[in-house]
Amino acid sequence: MRLGGVRIDIVTDITDVISTWLPTSELDTARARLPIVYVDAIPVRVNDLGEVISVGLLLRARPDGSISRAVISGRVFYGERIRDALLRHIEKDLGAMALPQVPASPTPFTIAEYFPDPEITGFHDPRQHAVSMVYVVPMAGDCAPSQNALDLVWLTPEEVVSENVRAEMTGGQDRLVRLALAFVGKLP
Amino acid sequence: MRLGGVRIDIVTDITDVISTWLPTSELDTARARLPIVYVDAIPVRVNDLGEVISVGLLLRARPDGSISRAVISGRVFYGERIRDALLRHIEKDLGAMALPQVPASPTPFTIAEYFPDPEITGFHDPRQHAVSMVYVVPMAGDCAPSQNALDLVWLTPEEVVSENVRAEMTGGQDRLVRLALAFVGKLP
Amino acid sequence: MRLGGVRIDIVTDITDVISTWLPTSELDTARARLPIVYVDAIPVRVNDLGEVISVGLLLRARPDGSISRAVISGRVFYGERIRDALLRHIEKDLGAMALPQVPASPTPFTIAEYFPDPEITGFHDPRQHAVSMVYVVPMAGDCAPSQNALDLVWLTPEEVVSENVRAEMTGGQDRLVRLALAFVGKLP
Amino acid sequence: MRLGGVRIDIVTDITDVISTWLPTSELDTARARLPIVYVDAIPVRVNDLGEVISVGLLLRARPDGSISRAVISGRVFYGERIRDALLRHIEKDLGAMALPQVPASPTPFTIAEYFPDPEITGFHDPRQHAVSMVYVVPMAGDCAPSQNALDLVWLTPEEVVSENVRAEMTGGQDRLVRLALAFVGKLP
Repeated sequence: MRLGGVRIDIVTDITDVISTWLPTSELDTARARLPIVYVDAIPVRVNDLGEVISVGLLLRARPDGSISRAVISGRVFYGERIRDALLRHIEKDLGAMALPQVPASPTPFTIAEYFPDPEITGFHDPRQHAVSMVYVVPMAGDCAPSQNALDLVWLTPEEVVSENVRAEMTGGQDRLVRLALAFVGKLP
Repeated sequence: MRLGGVRIDIVTDITDVISTWLPTSELDTARARLPIVYVDAIPVRVNDLGEVISVGLLLRARPDGSISRAVISGRVFYGERIRDALLRHIEKDLGAMALPQVPASPTPFTIAEYFPDPEITGFHDPRQHAVSMVYVVPMAGDCAPSQNALDLVWLTPEEVVSENVRAEMTGGQDRLVRLALAFVGKLP
Repeated sequence: MRLGGVRIDIVTDITDVISTWLPTSELDTARARLPIVYVDAIPVRVNDLGEVISVGLLLRARPDGSISRAVISGRVFYGERIRDALLRHIEKDLGAMALPQVPASPTPFTIAEYFPDPEITGFHDPRQHAVSMVYVVPMAGDCAPSQNALDLVWLTPEEVVSENVRAEMTGGQDRLVRLALAFVGKLP
Repeated sequence: MRLGGVRIDIVTDITDVISTWLPTSELDTARARLPIVYVDAIPVRVNDLGEVISVGLLLRARPDGSISRAVISGRVFYGERIRDALLRHIEKDLGAMALPQVPASPTPFTIAEYFPDPEITGFHDPRQHAVSMVYVVPMAGDCAPSQNALDLVWLTPEEVVSENVRAEMTGGQDRLVRLALAFVGKLP
């Protein structure tokens, strides 16, 4: 599509919406040359004590009818702070009423390095080399997946590490969820 | 005072209320022999982005009329989880409406080792050797100091590291506050 | 045994050697009344890049002939810093030539709360309520188990999370090892 | 200069050596459009207990004859892991005999977001928006600045936070050093 003479590409990937800040052709070039800065957020529900009781996973239908599950993930724009990118992607995926409690510390609980080669770190992105800062983010409000194709399920720590659920995540995101559970002391 | 034959000591220190769980004489003995498990909480206010905008300090009048400022600090009871101890001390000092958002991770951002000898670590407690797990805790509700002698002030990061304020904290708590500000990326 | 009129108890548990700093009867009393400060260390080998390639587990024979595996764990003495306690327990279990690289930061990667009731946190110690600060410690030297009954094995991340090995750890230490692997980004 | 028809720019900045992996013109374009992935390393010396006893700062002469001090900082290449980038920049700045002990955990102790606008975060880079993962790295070997213009000084925590030394750092690196000292529990 074109908007005001600038080509805007609506990438269908859940994790990335390309804005006018970078034309697609240039982003494609950059993606072949530079690691891209990403943020991942694992949405959780906590009880009154602050303990994680469930993990939110986004769902979408794959062309073959199977279900894919994923955490929130997306690019950081030029000039955008990590914290703003986190909130932008959370709102995009969970709606404006999710009331995320982004941690006070800017330090991610881990770094996920996604490579086109799945062997390097186990985190795999066929499109690019992305370095993602990963956060666990409690949601205090109502989460409503804000794009048609997406749904959202809340799973207990036991459920989320089950073989069934892990089989429905790709690119190493099942491992990312387990790292998050370990970080919050809830790895079964 | 005596209650059911067991001597109960109401310690006037802000950081510790001795319960029947341990008679004072035994606690005194233990304190001379064992490190005591503590929790410290630095109460903060955050904005919608989760960034720390102010730090809460408890105030009390000293016998000589000067003001002492402190963070929330207290003992962990036998059988009590760290998380429950944190919430108990926060409620005791800031009231039941403070709505603390205790972090999802059980990992403290630092450890403060208090010794009777002020030279060992810079953290000083003349009564005991205490090992304190220290957390930054955003408060989402109304904080009302719940004991007569106490008041509470909210200070910006710049104010809280000023010479004036630092001079009113003892035992190394001014340093603890600066470590907390560093952890949240707000050390001036 | 008695030494200078003070009863000294040599506890046979690998994780605790009681010194004259606290007579056993008083420690027993304290253990029934107060949480005890502990440190746990997960010994690892790292490659030139600093990546964890194997995890060390202590072995001992149980009375029934089965094998029990454990990480390094022990009490912090009165007046002793966490860092000194860590090094003391590492030397006791792995010998004086282990050359441990204790992390520069005093912050443990997680907290393990051991309770006599195994249901509370999953970390279980029938003797006491212990609050343990847990560290991953690379060993640069030769590790030689320094007590007769103990041996030491180095296992890859894959091996150490296998069902067989996990079945040989008790008290939740298998989970502690997985939390450590998650922390270092090596959870399979 | 030109090499095989591709213009190669030798950037004189200490923190960046542009390779053939990305021609300068494209890097310039990308820098105006995308945040760039960086690593910063604060070199330290530790004692046998693992405690930080000094911090290493690189020195160079400015055109006006004044001295500028800096930590190790540089870009992550396409296809390069964070850990490899860290070691590459450390070797480039401190030589091949520095024997860096890169932490076992991939998690940086903080994130520094450098912007062309110095007001946004306090971390300033006039050339680009860089997102840097920051690590404290103990050096076990001999550190010899490996480029002509550079020297290296080791300063105690007290010295490194002194007004004089802070005045010789730019772009917020003095604050980064203080965040590192806080992380290792050595902020004066």
